[in-house]
Amino acid sequence: MNLLFLGTSAGTPTKQRNFSGLALRERRGKGWYLIDCGEATQHQLLHTPLSLHGLRAILITHMHGDHCYGLPGLLASASMNGRVEPLLIVAPEALKAWLLATFEATQVTLSFSLAFQFVEALPCIDFETLEVSTTRLSHGVDSYAYSFTEKPTPALDTEKLIAQGVPRGPLWGQLYNGENVEWNGEILESRAYLRMTQPPGKIVVAGDNDCPALLASACEGAQVLVHEATYTAAMADKAAEVRHSYAGQVAAFAESVALPHLVLTHFSPRYQSRGEAASSIEAIRQEAQEAYTGTLYLARDFAEFSLDKAGRLTELSAAGAPSAT
Amino acid sequence: MNLLFLGTSAGTPTKQRNFSGLALRERRGKGWYLIDCGEATQHQLLHTPLSLHGLRAILITHMHGDHCYGLPGLLASASMNGRVEPLLIVAPEALKAWLLATFEATQVTLSFSLAFQFVEALPCIDFETLEVSTTRLSHGVDSYAYSFTEKPTPALDTEKLIAQGVPRGPLWGQLYNGENVEWNGEILESRAYLRMTQPPGKIVVAGDNDCPALLASACEGAQVLVHEATYTAAMADKAAEVRHSYAGQVAAFAESVALPHLVLTHFSPRYQSRGEAASSIEAIRQEAQEAYTGTLYLARDFAEFSLDKAGRLTELSAAGAPSAT
Repeated sequence: MNLLFLGTSAGTPTKQRNFSGLALRERRGKGWYLIDCGEATQHQLLHTPLSLHGLRAILITHMHGDHCYGLPGLLASASMNGRVEPLLIVAPEALKAWLLATFEATQVTLSFSLAFQFVEALPCIDFETLEVSTTRLSHGVDSYAYSFTEKPTPALDTEKLIAQGVPRGPLWGQLYNGENVEWNGEILESRAYLRMTQPPGKIVVAGDNDCPALLASACEGAQVLVHEATYTAAMADKAAEVRHSYAGQVAAFAESVALPHLVLTHFSPRYQSRGEAASSIEAIRQEAQEAYTGTLYLARDFAEFSLDKAGRLTELSAAGAPSAT
Repeated sequence: MNLLFLGTSAGTPTKQRNFSGLALRERRGKGWYLIDCGEATQHQLLHTPLSLHGLRAILITHMHGDHCYGLPGLLASASMNGRVEPLLIVAPEALKAWLLATFEATQVTLSFSLAFQFVEALPCIDFETLEVSTTRLSHGVDSYAYSFTEKPTPALDTEKLIAQGVPRGPLWGQLYNGENVEWNGEILESRAYLRMTQPPGKIVVAGDNDCPALLASACEGAQVLVHEATYTAAMADKAAEVRHSYAGQVAAFAESVALPHLVLTHFSPRYQSRGEAASSIEAIRQEAQEAYTGTLYLARDFAEFSLDKAGRLTELSAAGAPSAT
């Protein structure tokens, strides 16, 4: 799985950071999932290789405007671009009524059908190559995390096949595809020749949340947590008031569950890439690093990260996309 | 008055052109008016000198998403930035219900109050330095034009004052400000010393419209018409189907009413700044020039035009703003 950040600012956009939006790309193919869709998410997509035709589902963590105001326009553009595949939206139930009312008020008829799954039911959603589960968080409005777990892809035990003298060829393919085959007068059972190589990739993407500990179960088996760090501890009172987390709080949680990789995002515009120490994005990084010994990343717009089969998350080199919306 | 284009694309955004948005700036001071507010209009503003604190009113021409989806986010950001001045929104009546429902669904409480004027009543709206009148157009949904007329600013007849020996000083200021004054044993009436110098500046900004002739009355006394030219005549059938205008049609109308300046905007993304002749933005220009002998401009994002006191519209040099959203 890959993560491509489309927006990393909280509340209002800056020249460098858009409202929340995150593309999770499948390991193979052009399929991707969009988590949150702040205003101008579709504009950010113009600067990426992602196409709205490859979009498998949209998942909204909560109904604050900086996480969902881009949804009507993105869907309308997908329609104008001729999408025909149905699209699943996973979101709080109230989003459906707002979205349909918006389309009615502005006379939008989509070229494709929408399906909805309401996150309040905490569904587990089965996609072709991965499964999504949901976790309820703590924020000013109902907010949720989505956990993406890759479906296990078994490897064929070729050493065993060779040792038994089973000839390389179509038989191997049938065994790999789950078929039992007859060879040399005996039945070879597929499952006897398949083995799991690595634990499945798992990425947890949290919505706004002032209580990281709620993600303890979700983080079991996860290699990556993407979580807001709207403030530093110096703004803990403000964070508590608006029900957000500060960097040290998230980092301490990640440390407590021995999470291998933590990606912080959703930074208050008060933290700039330049400026005095206390108002620099580096203050977020330093505070998190003091509490966390895993691999820490601070998301930037258009930053892309790859989770490999061995469970390592690395940042890909910048794609040359513009730094500003 | 100045015109600063924030978005000049129709339907979907491109890397060079955003959804519709146009800032009309007062000749003096920092006050401005926003006509239409497509998605990411607030992002475009980050690249201009305009502040949401100086925004006097928002006027929406019609309720298609590419003209209004940026409104909730722009207002929410104005609130987060601490605006306290009430704000007037002039728009189709249905916009109010949609906007308030959006704020309710996403739990937005603004830091300032909103007032609404419904454009269906064809109001004339009296602002401090200009008046706005409205014209009903023809489109797939109810669509309107807004005409901005500067209030006349009289000049003091200094030649007459000097000829009569009235000494330069506070007396002149009182006369200019409309006060009658006593001088040399007689009453000087203010209105006898004020004269109108130039016809007032008038700019007509039209929403989407397939019948430019509806603007004949509005264009009386106007120096400038801003009008969509979504297509060229080669796409006349498509234009008719989606109730838009093509370049030659608007140009012929402007010629018929002897309009001094025509600014075309709202171009289909099929017309690019580069490419084959038929799909180039230059095809729009050529078609319009063939039918129109006045001064023609094609709007670009961040292009700024100034209407001077003599009624001449000129393009200001580029402000160095980015070409892409």
